[in-house]
Parts: sequence; C-alpha cells; structure tokens
Amino acid sequence: MKVLIIGGVAGGATAAARLRRLDETAEIVVIERTGYVSYANCGLPYYVGGAIKDRAKLTLQTPESFRSRFNVDVRVRQEAVAIDRAAKTVAIRRLEDGSEYAESYDKLILSPGAKATVPDLPGMDAKRLFTLRTVEDTFAIADFIEREHPRTATVVGAGFIGLEMAENLTERGIKVTVLQRGGHAMPTLDGDMAALVHNALREHGVTLMLGAGVTGFEEREDGGMRTLLKSAAPVDSDMVLLSVGVTPESDLARDAGLDLGLRGAIKVDEHMRTSDPDIYAVGDAVQVKNFATGDAALIALAGPANKQGRIAADNICGIPRAFKGSQGSSVMKLFDGTVASTGLTCKAAEAAGLGFDYVLLAPANHATYYPGSSSMTLKVVFERSSGRILGAQAVGREGVEKRIDVIATAMRARMTASDLTELDLCYAPPYSSAKDPVNMAGYIIENVLEGRVRQVTWDDVAAVAEKGIRDADEAESPRPPLVLLDCRTDGEFARSHIEGALHIPLDDLRDRLDLLSPDWEIWVYCQSGLRSYVACRILEQHGFSCANIAGGYGFYEQTALDRSVRTDGVGPCGMAAE
Amino acid sequence: MKVLIIGGVAGGATAAARLRRLDETAEIVVIERTGYVSYANCGLPYYVGGAIKDRAKLTLQTPESFRSRFNVDVRVRQEAVAIDRAAKTVAIRRLEDGSEYAESYDKLILSPGAKATVPDLPGMDAKRLFTLRTVEDTFAIADFIEREHPRTATVVGAGFIGLEMAENLTERGIKVTVLQRGGHAMPTLDGDMAALVHNALREHGVTLMLGAGVTGFEEREDGGMRTLLKSAAPVDSDMVLLSVGVTPESDLARDAGLDLGLRGAIKVDEHMRTSDPDIYAVGDAVQVKNFATGDAALIALAGPANKQGRIAADNICGIPRAFKGSQGSSVMKLFDGTVASTGLTCKAAEAAGLGFDYVLLAPANHATYYPGSSSMTLKVVFERSSGRILGAQAVGREGVEKRIDVIATAMRARMTASDLTELDLCYAPPYSSAKDPVNMAGYIIENVLEGRVRQVTWDDVAAVAEKGIRDADEAESPRPPLVLLDCRTDGEFARSHIEGALHIPLDDLRDRLDLLSPDWEIWVYCQSGLRSYVACRILEQHGFSCANIAGGYGFYEQTALDRSVRTDGVGPCGMAAE
Repeated sequence: MKVLIIGGVAGGATAAARLRRLDETAEIVVIERTGYVSYANCGLPYYVGGAIKDRAKLTLQTPESFRSRFNVDVRVRQEAVAIDRAAKTVAIRRLEDGSEYAESYDKLILSPGAKATVPDLPGMDAKRLFTLRTVEDTFAIADFIEREHPRTATVVGAGFIGLEMAENLTERGIKVTVLQRGGHAMPTLDGDMAALVHNALREHGVTLMLGAGVTGFEEREDGGMRTLLKSAAPVDSDMVLLSVGVTPESDLARDAGLDLGLRGAIKVDEHMRTSDPDIYAVGDAVQVKNFATGDAALIALAGPANKQGRIAADNICGIPRAFKGSQGSSVMKLFDGTVASTGLTCKAAEAAGLGFDYVLLAPANHATYYPGSSSMTLKVVFERSSGRILGAQAVGREGVEKRIDVIATAMRARMTASDLTELDLCYAPPYSSAKDPVNMAGYIIENVLEGRVRQVTWDDVAAVAEKGIRDADEAESPRPPLVLLDCRTDGEFARSHIEGALHIPLDDLRDRLDLLSPDWEIWVYCQSGLRSYVACRILEQHGFSCANIAGGYGFYEQTALDRSVRTDGVGPCGMAAE
Repeated sequence: MKVLIIGGVAGGATAAARLRRLDETAEIVVIERTGYVSYANCGLPYYVGGAIKDRAKLTLQTPESFRSRFNVDVRVRQEAVAIDRAAKTVAIRRLEDGSEYAESYDKLILSPGAKATVPDLPGMDAKRLFTLRTVEDTFAIADFIEREHPRTATVVGAGFIGLEMAENLTERGIKVTVLQRGGHAMPTLDGDMAALVHNALREHGVTLMLGAGVTGFEEREDGGMRTLLKSAAPVDSDMVLLSVGVTPESDLARDAGLDLGLRGAIKVDEHMRTSDPDIYAVGDAVQVKNFATGDAALIALAGPANKQGRIAADNICGIPRAFKGSQGSSVMKLFDGTVASTGLTCKAAEAAGLGFDYVLLAPANHATYYPGSSSMTLKVVFERSSGRILGAQAVGREGVEKRIDVIATAMRARMTASDLTELDLCYAPPYSSAKDPVNMAGYIIENVLEGRVRQVTWDDVAAVAEKGIRDADEAESPRPPLVLLDCRTDGEFARSHIEGALHIPLDDLRDRLDLLSPDWEIWVYCQSGLRSYVACRILEQHGFSCANIAGGYGFYEQTALDRSVRTDGVGPCGMAAE
C-alpha cells in the first residue's frame, strides 16, 4: 500500500507516524510546502516573544528524524498542484526549480491546513506587513525585529494569533495597537466575557480599538506603516501583523472535484473520508461537526487536527474509527492570565436556535485561606429545557483551563447541570475548594432551573437604567417600580456602587425588611452573585419580588470599565467616528 | 419545622446554610463540640507549617457570623450524648459545666465526622504526643512548636494528614521521621506509584520507615519522646504526631439503635437517610457507595461531606436528591509536587474481583518546547472486558490534578478508553500538548486492548531477573530466551541501563534487526514507554515476539531507587529487623 500525504504538520505528521506503526510495509510519502515538518506551530508566537529562544526547539522533528524513526519519505519545499483521481496520481512541484513530477497513491491524505486570510486591500504588499503561519513567517518577523528594532506594531485582528502576538510583541518592548473589526476580541467568547480580555490587554499597555474596519495600508516615507481605518484616523506603526482569521486551503480538493462545504472547507465523513473513497482529509482544511449542535463547523485547532490524522490512518488500515465532532475547546495565555472556553457561547447557542440561559460566577481557584488564591470569572451556558451543558468560558489565572477541561469532558458525556453538581473532583486547599467551581456552576444552574432564584443580567439593568431606575413610568410599563439592592458590606458599598442603589448588608437584611415594599421589583447584587442569591432567598420567602443580578458588582465593574474606555471606531487620538 | 444538626463543620454547616436558603421559617439548631464552626479543616496542617499565618483565616465563619447570615442557632462547646428517637429529642451536654438539657427535633442530621484513630498502646497519654483533627488540636501543636522549639518529630502514619504534617513540620525546620506500618505510603496509591512519593519525601529530608509497626511510646527523661517499634530500634524525637487513620464517630448513632455498616459507620440510603426516617447522616461518619464498584465504602473527604450535607437538606425540604457514590478523588501537595488520584487502584480493583489492567505513562504537563514543562507519572486502571476506566493515580508537579479531575469526570460518565481518546481538551503550549496526557492514556489502553502491543511490567522483569535474564533455563520454563532491549539513545544508555540489556537505538532498529533472533522473547524499554512502543510495532511486524515494558526506564529508576533505600522494619541506625 502506498499512502501519499499532502502536508507534514499536525494532522499529516500524526497520520504518517500512526500509519507506520500500523503497517511497517506501507510506502508513505509526505509532501510539505515549507522547509519544516511536524513543527511547533502553536509555539511560533512565543519564539517571537523570546519565551522560546532556540530555533531548533520549534522544529524538533526534521525530515531526517522523521525518516529514520518512521521510515517515511518526507519531501519538503514541494507543493501538490493537482490531483488526478482517475489515475490516482498527484502532480508535485519542486519549489526550488519549479519542476514537476507525478506521484502515485493508493490512499491520499490531504492535510493542507488553513492559510492566514488575506483581505483584498490596498497596500497588502508592504514589506513591513506580516502574517504568521509557518516557521518561515516566524523567523521573518523575529529577524525583522532584531534588525529594525520596531518600537510600535499594529496587530489587525484579535483572535488567538492576534492576541498571542500582541502579548509577545509587548514582551519584546514593542508598543502594540490591536485593531478589531468586530465589537469585541475573541470570537470564542461572548462580548461580556471578552470585556475581561479587553481590560487585561489595556492593563498590559496594549491599545485596543474595537469596531475598527481596516481599509488599507500605506508605506510611509520614513519607512513605517500606516493602517487606514474606515471610521477613524489612520494608525501609524513600525510594523503590521495581519491576523484576521484563516481560510481552509482547499484549492487542490476543489480543483479535483471533491465535495466542499462551509467557506470552501473539504467535506469529510466521520471516518475523515472525502467524497472520493481513496482520499482522506484532516485538520484545519476540513469541515467538521460541531459536537454541541451537530451543525457543520470550521474549527482550526491543533488538538482535533492531530486526532483526525490518527483516525484517518486507522481507517486506511482497516481499523474503524470515527471523529464525532469538535467542541472547539481552547485556551490562551494572556500575559499573567488565562482565557479558556469550550462548546457554545450564548451567541452561538442563539444562532443554533437553542433555548438557552447562562450563569456567571466568580469563584476562587482554590481555598481563599490558603495563600495565592485568585478569582476567575466563569460563564456556563446551558439548555433551558434539559439543563444540558452547552458551553463554558472562563477568564482568570491559575486553574482556569482545568475547569474548562472538566466541563469539556462533562459536555462530551452530554451531562446536565445536576451531573456537574455530582462530579467528584480533587480537593485540597492549594488546588480547589470543597465545592469546586464546576460543582458551584451546577448548583447555580439547578437553582435557576428549579425556580429557586430568578436571575437578571447587567444588560437588563442597563436597559432599565435608560428609563430611570426606581422612577420607571408605571403608565408606560406594567413593571412595578424597580429597586436595585446592594447587599454588600458597608466598606464595599462605600468604595463604589451603582448610583441609586439601596444598600442593606446581607447580614442585616432580615432585620431591615421594613425598608422594602412588597410592591417593588427588587434586583439584588453583591460582589460575585453568591450573597445576593442568599438575599434573594430571604426576600422571596418573605413575599418580596426579587431577582439576582448575575455576576455581581465585580462583573459590572469589569464590563463598565471596558465600556468606559472603549474607542470603538475612534482613533487613538480620540477623534470622533464618521 | 425544627432541624437539629449535630456537628457544625463541612457537612453539618453546609446542611444548615442550605436549609436556611430553602426554608426561611425553619428552626435550625447546630450543636458543635469544639469551639469553632465551619472551619478550614483541610487547612489545619498549613497553619502548623506557617503557609497560613492568621488564626482567623482558619475560622472565617464564627457562630456569630453564621447566626447573622443564616439565622442558625449555633451552640459551640456542646456535645450530643444521646438520641431519644421515640421522643425525638437529643440530650445535649454543655462541656463547660457538664450540665445537660434535651433539644427536640422534627428532623435530625448527624454530621459528627470521624475521629483520629487512637490505637490502644502504652504511653498514649504522653504530653508530646499529638493528633490533628480540630482547630484546638492545631493550635496546641503550633503553640507547642513555638514554645518548645522541637528539632525532631516522628509522624506515625503516612496517609494524607501524616504526609501533609511531615511536609509542614519540615517547613518549620523540624527533622521528621515518618513511620508507616504498611509497605508503602498513601493507601490511595498502588505501591509502585507510592515509590515516587517515598522518593520525594526523602529528597526533602524526611526519613521514611516502612513496615514499621509501632508498639508504644515512652517519655524520655530529657522530656523527649521515644517511639517503640516491633522490629527495629526505637525512634527518639522531640514530639510525635499520630495519624494512623480515622474512625467514624458513630457512638451516638449506635446507642440510638441506628443501622451501622463498615467499621461502625452509619448506614444511609442515597438520600442520606439513616434507618430512622427522621434522622439523616452525612460526612465522614457515614458509609457510602464506592462509585466504581457499587460496594460499601468509607471515604473521609471534604468534597463528598459538603455534597451530602446539601443533599440531606434538600431531601428534608422535599427536593428529591441522591448521592450516587464517591470516587474518592483526592489531591495532596507534597513539597513542590502534587499527588492525586481517583477511583480504584489496582489493589482495590483486585479486591473488588474486577478483571483489570493498567497503563503507565510519563507525559509532560505541557509542550516541552515551551519553558517550564515537567513530566508526571500517570497510571490509569481499566476494566479488561469493557475498556471502562476504573481509576487513575498521578504524581508530578503542575497539571497533575487537572488530569485526575478530567479522568474523574470521565469515570462519572462511565467512559471507556476510547472515550478518553476523543476528549476535546484545551491546548496551548503553556498548558498541555495537542494530545493531552488523558488522550494519550486512552490511546495506549486502546492499543493494549486491541492487541497492537503486549505490555509487561517491571515486576514481570524482576520476577524473571531472579532466574537470570537471557539465561533462563529452557528446560524449566517453556518461555524462550528472554532479552531486554534498550531502545534509547547512546547517551541515555551510557548514563545508565538495566544490566544485561541489549542496546539498539530506536532510530537504528530497522537496520539492525539481524542482531535479533525470532526465537527470542524481547522485552523493550525506552525512557517513558513511548519509543519502546514504536519499537514493538516494528519488531512485531517483522515477526519478532516482543512486549513493551510499561513505564519505561524512568519508572524503573524511581522504583529501584525506592527499593534501594527502603528501611523496612529497620531502624534509622541500620539495625537489622527481627
């Protein structure tokens, strides 16, 4: 059997190694366009930043090492240009001299990946405009920094690569401006959770412009770059990194007449087989099933790519194996913080037409009496009708991705909120709390679903606030006068609070119920949402109409801080938008 | 409704708070024998060690704060002495003056915990002999250290409390000797994994004596302590901490005629109800179901106790809720390391009569090309017939308890090894690898179950080694000549290797197969078991009979180091055992 693999990173490299382990006699040929195979593609930004100092560490595997260990014929700097499905050959071009030859296959695996999306804008050929995908791209950026000592950089796009590069350029002492076309960074988060990311970026000296539509680039006379914006003054910098997403590399598959799906991604069945039974495809170039919804999705991540490579190899060798879908579980270091998520955001749940709700909590990563604890913000999205967990997002420091991994595992088992409450997780004071944050999320969802507490969000508060809290026109609205109740301590209230909120510390509440009217609608907040839940239980049982404001004052402060300093579509000089 | 709760820590405190949130009008009385409620019992060793410096941090909740927040009548320094089930009253004794009174109940919750097991040995009343359970015990030890400046301590028992105290006493500059009656520390681990714990203890200056049966204690004339051993010279020290396990506090329940189970623990149904429908029991005093086997078990941990307290409260308030069993998931900090486990050890699986096997791997906690990675040792036990995961143990540094939490969640969903391979976990270089250690464990188990590799253990090697590797008498045994093959690099082999092993680096193996005979039985090892697996796949496909040695040379070195310095039943002076 002869297996030809197009693309020698992640999925392709995994497939080659697994094939060899399964079949010592197969002929395995890997064609790789770059000069490197099985390289550390997720580590590339950290080479630019200097955390990874040794070039060789990015490329631990070489064509030679791969050949000696796995007896695989790795051909770098060669590109597949056409598939002849009838003849079962692929035309390969040697990039050094442009010469071509035909390579035959019994089975073909396409693992071409996804390329950095390059919009059709003026000035895209500027020398100081970079994208990051390959080892070569990385060295080009790093060499440029060494040579030219840029003091400022503009990063266009605030996804994983954009933000990892913003961090790593900052680590090199470069002042970074991030331009994001949409209303918030990181499409894997909802806007409210992204606010925490925005604040963290600004805290570390990154300038963030949201709603910033880039219209083109210019090379300035002094050699620098100018990034032109649709609705704001242009942004000047010594270099630009473009990271506005990725596009599946499916030209080869399309030209060969293979079925394509979303945004041109290669369609595969659950065995990673394309519409041609002798051609498999894996990794960022293929369309997968979103595990939570069953819908078609594009999820460009290393984990699924590696799994798919192995699955393709197994099926080729007669071991039936299926890829059952991707949850898009991901984590990103952001300076001293961690951002992680799995499954659906609220936005994605809404787009999927699911009846969903969510809870927000701010648990400590471990027992607060043990030194070094920090709190994280955890948002868990669930299906209203079933309590099934649909997704989770978390921002914090230590222990963030642990909780997302646990929830990702629970989602894999289609667990509900009640199941989360029962999870038997490791506890000792340096690691967690007796009720782990994941258990707590389950409890809160259970309380919501079983009607023990009604929750509202800060968005609800904002919507009402526009009409004037407590003075809502009763003629206009059937809603009774709305009162915000702050149940934190005197000290917390004195430090800051919502304008117009009534203040009764939780521990005094039972004695001061006479301050409240049963005719009011009372929305309660504390710092994180836990004490206000206790307050709601007291109020409701005493006949008051009340709701708990999800996320508490801590979350309000974060989102308000973000709103107060946002420069949506406004240049760094504060010039007004169009 | 009036609910009387005996015991105001963990389960009892949780039950009280939940009851109040569910029922504002209930009368809730908590009786607590010590002077503290809802204290940080898992944090107590860290107060002794100095990581927690503020006494108030251990006792964040006070009877007063509990009363003001939850309107619960908390009575400390009072002890329940008898239950009159017919009258539905409990006789309570005020410890200050010994006076007694009767308190009535509609529902009674017993949360008395488990007491430190105190064996019936001579000298148990020595002033410098301590146990650790309560805040008072903690302050007594800490005050003793402040006052007497002990230079040496003997810790009897190497479970959680014993080892946490060994660490914390060491942190105070005290030279610690740990005496363990059994053959290894930590009953939550198998002996092979415990070897890593033994080594870590010794590395941090702790003297560890295994197989050390204590026969009594003496107060020396100079005021110090002498611990007498059955089979070795006595151990002198300035203080002794006894931590030989816990015993359910079930005298009250027994005297009231409630059904008892294992070692006198209180029997409850899954609603935490005892044999009296008006009496519930929770926490360390009750018998639970082992989630993995369904058998009765005693699992004294804070997590289950808290969950059970909440479940009891829910059921009392008419919300049907069940405790479905405990996996015993636990984690312990040990100096700069972490030890965690969930579910069954091999020993426990064997005792339960399950057909099991296990895999051992030594994955890095995150991508090795990103700075600061460390490797962990992960042992995963599975059911042979079904591939269902039965338990896992891990020892390492960062990321250890994350993997155990993920596996604990997978076990909750009764997942198999194949399910582990499919888990969609968070990956970025600072956090994990594209194939997470949990995925890897799944892959390895799949390879074992599907017959792609045969594995043997170092125990198997040791058993054969006694008869002489490679020279096994063919007349005695039908086994062909056995050859150990080291497939590591020249440098690794030169550093150290198994005496008599043949050495062929993996990358040279295909070219040097002529060095091997198809008549041999070849057992292959590398450093962690990964390269040797690749070697086995090559060998097997070329017609050789081979097996992979689980855990590799790294695990061999750890267990051999432990064996070489063990002082089983031998005093610190090296005196021979009886």
